[in-house]
Amino acid sequence: MSEPFFTEVQGPIGFGGLDSTDPLTFKVYQPDRVVLGRRMVDWLRPGVCVWHSFSWDGRDMFGIGTLDRPWLADPDEMRGARTRLAVAFEFFSKLGTPYYCFHDRDVAPEGDSFATFAANLDAIVDEALGYQERTGVQLLWGTANLFTHPRYQAGAATNPDPAVFAYAAAQVTHMLEVTKRLGGENYVLWGGREGYDTLLNTDLRREGEQLARFLHLVAEHKARIGFTGQLLIEPKPMEPTKHQYDYDSTVVHGFLVRHGLDGEYKVNIEANHATLAGHSFHHEVAYAAAHGMLGSIDANRGDPQNGWDTDQFPISVDDLVMPIYEIIRAGGLGTGGFNFDAKLRRQSSDRTDLFHAHISGLDTLAQALLAAADLVERGELAVLKDARYAGWDGELGQAILGGSASLPDLAARVASGEVDPRPVSGSQERLEGLVNQSVWRANRGA
Amino acid sequence: MSEPFFTEVQGPIGFGGLDSTDPLTFKVYQPDRVVLGRRMVDWLRPGVCVWHSFSWDGRDMFGIGTLDRPWLADPDEMRGARTRLAVAFEFFSKLGTPYYCFHDRDVAPEGDSFATFAANLDAIVDEALGYQERTGVQLLWGTANLFTHPRYQAGAATNPDPAVFAYAAAQVTHMLEVTKRLGGENYVLWGGREGYDTLLNTDLRREGEQLARFLHLVAEHKARIGFTGQLLIEPKPMEPTKHQYDYDSTVVHGFLVRHGLDGEYKVNIEANHATLAGHSFHHEVAYAAAHGMLGSIDANRGDPQNGWDTDQFPISVDDLVMPIYEIIRAGGLGTGGFNFDAKLRRQSSDRTDLFHAHISGLDTLAQALLAAADLVERGELAVLKDARYAGWDGELGQAILGGSASLPDLAARVASGEVDPRPVSGSQERLEGLVNQSVWRANRGA
Amino acid sequence: MSEPFFTEVQGPIGFGGLDSTDPLTFKVYQPDRVVLGRRMVDWLRPGVCVWHSFSWDGRDMFGIGTLDRPWLADPDEMRGARTRLAVAFEFFSKLGTPYYCFHDRDVAPEGDSFATFAANLDAIVDEALGYQERTGVQLLWGTANLFTHPRYQAGAATNPDPAVFAYAAAQVTHMLEVTKRLGGENYVLWGGREGYDTLLNTDLRREGEQLARFLHLVAEHKARIGFTGQLLIEPKPMEPTKHQYDYDSTVVHGFLVRHGLDGEYKVNIEANHATLAGHSFHHEVAYAAAHGMLGSIDANRGDPQNGWDTDQFPISVDDLVMPIYEIIRAGGLGTGGFNFDAKLRRQSSDRTDLFHAHISGLDTLAQALLAAADLVERGELAVLKDARYAGWDGELGQAILGGSASLPDLAARVASGEVDPRPVSGSQERLEGLVNQSVWRANRGA
Amino acid sequence: MSEPFFTEVQGPIGFGGLDSTDPLTFKVYQPDRVVLGRRMVDWLRPGVCVWHSFSWDGRDMFGIGTLDRPWLADPDEMRGARTRLAVAFEFFSKLGTPYYCFHDRDVAPEGDSFATFAANLDAIVDEALGYQERTGVQLLWGTANLFTHPRYQAGAATNPDPAVFAYAAAQVTHMLEVTKRLGGENYVLWGGREGYDTLLNTDLRREGEQLARFLHLVAEHKARIGFTGQLLIEPKPMEPTKHQYDYDSTVVHGFLVRHGLDGEYKVNIEANHATLAGHSFHHEVAYAAAHGMLGSIDANRGDPQNGWDTDQFPISVDDLVMPIYEIIRAGGLGTGGFNFDAKLRRQSSDRTDLFHAHISGLDTLAQALLAAADLVERGELAVLKDARYAGWDGELGQAILGGSASLPDLAARVASGEVDPRPVSGSQERLEGLVNQSVWRANRGA
Repeated sequence: MSEPFFTEVQGPIGFGGLDSTDPLTFKVYQPDRVVLGRRMVDWLRPGVCVWHSFSWDGRDMFGIGTLDRPWLADPDEMRGARTRLAVAFEFFSKLGTPYYCFHDRDVAPEGDSFATFAANLDAIVDEALGYQERTGVQLLWGTANLFTHPRYQAGAATNPDPAVFAYAAAQVTHMLEVTKRLGGENYVLWGGREGYDTLLNTDLRREGEQLARFLHLVAEHKARIGFTGQLLIEPKPMEPTKHQYDYDSTVVHGFLVRHGLDGEYKVNIEANHATLAGHSFHHEVAYAAAHGMLGSIDANRGDPQNGWDTDQFPISVDDLVMPIYEIIRAGGLGTGGFNFDAKLRRQSSDRTDLFHAHISGLDTLAQALLAAADLVERGELAVLKDARYAGWDGELGQAILGGSASLPDLAARVASGEVDPRPVSGSQERLEGLVNQSVWRANRGA
Repeated sequence: MSEPFFTEVQGPIGFGGLDSTDPLTFKVYQPDRVVLGRRMVDWLRPGVCVWHSFSWDGRDMFGIGTLDRPWLADPDEMRGARTRLAVAFEFFSKLGTPYYCFHDRDVAPEGDSFATFAANLDAIVDEALGYQERTGVQLLWGTANLFTHPRYQAGAATNPDPAVFAYAAAQVTHMLEVTKRLGGENYVLWGGREGYDTLLNTDLRREGEQLARFLHLVAEHKARIGFTGQLLIEPKPMEPTKHQYDYDSTVVHGFLVRHGLDGEYKVNIEANHATLAGHSFHHEVAYAAAHGMLGSIDANRGDPQNGWDTDQFPISVDDLVMPIYEIIRAGGLGTGGFNFDAKLRRQSSDRTDLFHAHISGLDTLAQALLAAADLVERGELAVLKDARYAGWDGELGQAILGGSASLPDLAARVASGEVDPRPVSGSQERLEGLVNQSVWRANRGA
Repeated sequence: MSEPFFTEVQGPIGFGGLDSTDPLTFKVYQPDRVVLGRRMVDWLRPGVCVWHSFSWDGRDMFGIGTLDRPWLADPDEMRGARTRLAVAFEFFSKLGTPYYCFHDRDVAPEGDSFATFAANLDAIVDEALGYQERTGVQLLWGTANLFTHPRYQAGAATNPDPAVFAYAAAQVTHMLEVTKRLGGENYVLWGGREGYDTLLNTDLRREGEQLARFLHLVAEHKARIGFTGQLLIEPKPMEPTKHQYDYDSTVVHGFLVRHGLDGEYKVNIEANHATLAGHSFHHEVAYAAAHGMLGSIDANRGDPQNGWDTDQFPISVDDLVMPIYEIIRAGGLGTGGFNFDAKLRRQSSDRTDLFHAHISGLDTLAQALLAAADLVERGELAVLKDARYAGWDGELGQAILGGSASLPDLAARVASGEVDPRPVSGSQERLEGLVNQSVWRANRGA
Repeated sequence: MSEPFFTEVQGPIGFGGLDSTDPLTFKVYQPDRVVLGRRMVDWLRPGVCVWHSFSWDGRDMFGIGTLDRPWLADPDEMRGARTRLAVAFEFFSKLGTPYYCFHDRDVAPEGDSFATFAANLDAIVDEALGYQERTGVQLLWGTANLFTHPRYQAGAATNPDPAVFAYAAAQVTHMLEVTKRLGGENYVLWGGREGYDTLLNTDLRREGEQLARFLHLVAEHKARIGFTGQLLIEPKPMEPTKHQYDYDSTVVHGFLVRHGLDGEYKVNIEANHATLAGHSFHHEVAYAAAHGMLGSIDANRGDPQNGWDTDQFPISVDDLVMPIYEIIRAGGLGTGGFNFDAKLRRQSSDRTDLFHAHISGLDTLAQALLAAADLVERGELAVLKDARYAGWDGELGQAILGGSASLPDLAARVASGEVDPRPVSGSQERLEGLVNQSVWRANRGA
């Protein structure tokens, strides 16, 4: 057994409450606290990602690594991979979160051929199974990295070269099986380079067809191997490419329906991807919930003044209360959860900063859950929204929606003066006040 | 017959060429000049819009009107409307453009009831028919204004009140008929307030269903009256609402397919709406062309540093050459055209500025057409793009697309080492140089 | 005495607390509640603006007025102005806020000459003095509208025509005197059109000189008439112009120093202007506080997904806690205050919506004040920040700042190995958690 | 002598003209072609940067290197550095550009101490001197990399630790001397991390003072060693930090004046940094030119839809014509030039792509120069702009600017009706047409 890495933290992180002066305690998050009849942990199903926390050394486009991740420099790559796995599970255990997520390349060295890589991955997965058993930590979802290697510079499924499509297919085949083997509850596809850098060399129609074919093949293989988890697509509008095809939930929805794939996939919504797409996080969650597409959440945030994927830890209850409200109203995330697809600022160069960040993020989710639950319990928001549409249950509304009223029928009612609507207040500020009341009421007894 | 309004311009605007020092001549635009076997005017089919040019007085959110539009202040509103029509056709004739576009409310006074409005509109349309005959100017498209009146403050088809849906239906019924009567070649729906200001009072699912119902009704009525023009949806992502449902071409495409409407509608793409949506204008045109959705163009531009719809006149050949290249490759715009949905800067307060703006815009389109045609003729760009995807015509590509290769089949080929792709240059900078070569070659004989 | 306008509200708005179900009560705001030794109302010094609340009818660029503001349509403009004044003071009194703000043109009709306008304004000011006495409501600041009239289409002080400069000077002369007469505590200059629409017709150097001259003249006139209030400049980066010279606090600071004006002016910071400039509101407040420029606040917010000045009511404690923390640490706003430069959404078409909006805004400010005060009291944030810079009080730091160490001196210390710094964690996530702890602790006893 | 690296290119790149079908020829750029009395090369003074072209392997935040840069992997780092130098000068010579630029860390390995690094750098500089002599290629500017190493994670001069300030001072001391030794014509400071990631741990006032101190020390050392080149600051608003202090030209100007540094520094303006700051490139150049701050240009472009520093090669004459017009009107760039701070797209993975990119960029600059020269020669734009401000030379204008007219004096003239300005058209669209006329006329004889 390897030595502990996070020596400053004994773990598991305990509950300190809002008045605690110990930064290494939760201020709000209590996994077993019951909210609206369900435990906090069961609403949130929080997970830690391997890539940002254990496979990234703090580098950015203008600087080299700042974080203390010695296993990344281990000349024996498999030994380094094993150390990483041990440290990751040490962290999961000490933090006390039930889930983790990873890409195939996050945990196993590339090697010099696909066969070697597959063997490396299998060896690490063998170990991961042991860690899962010993710690109880489970796999929220697996995914394949189809964007880091140069072969994917022009995309994976949407590459102009079918051999790259095939290579991606090989990775997904294997990682889907790995995910099944580890009991993963979902499988995610993020099309990091499924888009274009310039339209001058890009055939949008061809690439769309290729992508649809790939998604069909994945769904077929899922059925073939009996994987029962949910397939998820993660929308992102751009970066690293200029334009990415899975732009947002609405675009993904349309694409799936156009290609007969809408029964097979839901979306994994990332807050920072939502804002990069010009939408609020609330919008993306609300759209997905309204259309039966809500799968899982990548919990993070962007910087409102920076136009790239900053992947910061969530800190704003104001940003989270309405997305979580939608999730509660939708009955929860099902097999999904809140995966912290968030990375430390590269100045956060102490080992313990990884705990501070996850504690802060979990507390924020927990506080937002309490606020959203209060809003659900008070019920006024839902009542007011439903009342606003009440007219659609009346004769006119039903005639329109039911198809019995044609355009000239409706025109005649207007021309006769029978129909002459008056504007009704949208009450936005009053509703905003209602939400804030719940945000500020939440957790007062703490 | 009314007095001329644009007394400084005799018209029609003649061709002066690139060395002309007379600002009231075209520098490039020559309607009858043949480009790739078609006259310039037949490629561009340019139109002038009534709203910005004749029904807006220069006001913005921080200032009152600056433009000299005396008919807007005529206490006899129908007389004002007739003056406007006369001035508009004076302008169309002097400018020499073949098309115009308008909303119902642009040309006729509201009155105190729908019936009055309908009568006002019919009376103006009677006159417009005469002007069309006398001048040869034709209607590119008609549309109904479903966003200015307070009744539409919460949307038209997507309003929480079905009576507003009915009112909108009445307007569209009438305006569709007017468009037919005037020989309009297309009918446009821009959902100015079909979106939301806040999700707190909005049911996305309901509003989507309402919108789809509306679009079905319009398509049915088109068939009922035998209107043979093309129905068009104009995407815009936001403004005046926080979020508009017809976000961009991709979203509209998905929505149409989801609701069985994709045979009925194409898109009217506006350059400024494209950039507000986070896309290049080229992207929007390329997407629509690739998916058979290309209908018509609202020719304008936004300010890259300003986040609202500035609706400026197009001035950049660099921005236009690739969209027009896509249009040429698609065989042209069919019944569509380039409508100048562009408004003067409010400091452009001389009457003649309206000519300067349209001359500058037409010259820009013409120069971009020449550049795009050169690019098409040289052919290299198309050859290089096709070559990039050549692998998809080979055995592997066909096996994938044809469905004979499963995921495990592909994985086996990779695992065996049979498939091991090497990255291929995307040649972006070389292609950019090629495009510039055509831009700079264009019109050298002038 | 005129009839009450807000008949649904008796006023004054009382305190209901966080559990109140009455939307017409404050949930948090209690003017006399003492926070860090000062009354809430004395920290916040909240004001209501006349322009958005009483001189705007709900119009936007795509729609006409939706709000019930009958005085705007009164054919007798002075009678309309008197009604507006009465309604405004009715509102101030019922809401219970101590301050208001207005532009000259918000309260008095333009008339057909400057002399007429001045007389109109004086007559209204006579009445306003009476209202102030009777209600105790005071003028936080006055300002002149130098952007609505077409004469200002190309700017006021920066206009290419010196006659426009003179006209602006006349308005400011008068309004500065009016502000003094009403006991106004500050005078604000917002350069709505002091910028450009296009550089093609703009001489940046000349316009900068003109602006500086104008600011000197205003400061001189302030001294001449013995006005003791604070002069304030309100930065905004763009809109209605493409680019506005008073871009942000940093730019204003530099401009003032370059022209010898830095003793005379401070800044009036607007949250929505900060975000339009690409900064957080916190940044703008922190910069001004750090450089002795902090004057007053325009309390509102923009929409993070919309690129124009939405001027919404503040609703996010998360956005406000740090700006208010900076204000507390700076000792408060002095003669400044929190002016709600915020407007209803145009769908908020009930009269009472104006109360809902201001109540929600005041509660948000109050809750943020409580959170910020908790952060100040706990003190940890300030301690950690100071500790981070402790090295600058040591020998090396003092040698650098004191000027005794030259570049080669420092180079020698490094070359010798004496100086070889190690990175220190910036602890961002831990600090974010600390702030949240105060946000969530605030007002728990309520 | 090392083997040639760019074996597909013989060089020097010749002139092919606009009809050439050989991608490895210039279509427009002819160094000796005389434009407005000066050779093209003397207007443009083009340079190639070492960092993007020879020290970057194509990696981005989501992918590893794609470019063929074998020297970066040489286990003998000094040998790798020598190979790079040889390849770089091979490229400069084959391309035929007169200048290059580099950071200290671009050319020499870090080593394990400052002393080692300094020795490495000196050894490479010895070689560079030889290359310069043999090829005639000169150093446009030198700079020190104060952002890549983890010691700079919290800034260099603005670091909370004075030891980091000292370390930065050591690097600049040395690199300033190296620049002098190589005959560099300028020295640039880009404050890559002189800003903040979060205000929670940042003292804006302290950091501003530190930065000013650093700039004073550099200016003093320049004088001390007799370096006669120009010192330049390169503004950038953000990235890698959330907010960078040298935001834009206006902010830098104010900062320099506030700290008595304005005689010592000019600005090196980067097009992509301008647009990240919310300005047009034209704005930044026009501001600097108007205030005597224009130093040098980093020629590149951003992607209008992507919010990060894409550093693409310039391709739009429309974007460049007005900046170059300002530069011509300012008499040229003096000791500055156009440095291609531009990188290949990472898909451009052929060696020859580096030529395609620089050829395309140089041709674009050349074509823009021809267009701008035409605009200068025709002169109408300048005449129209001057005429717009003519009133300021009259009695009223002079009274205002000369200080003889007080605010009440001006008010009296307005109150009397003597001054009553009428709006004048800004003629924006006409001016835009004028500019396009020159853009399209340029190089017609080619």
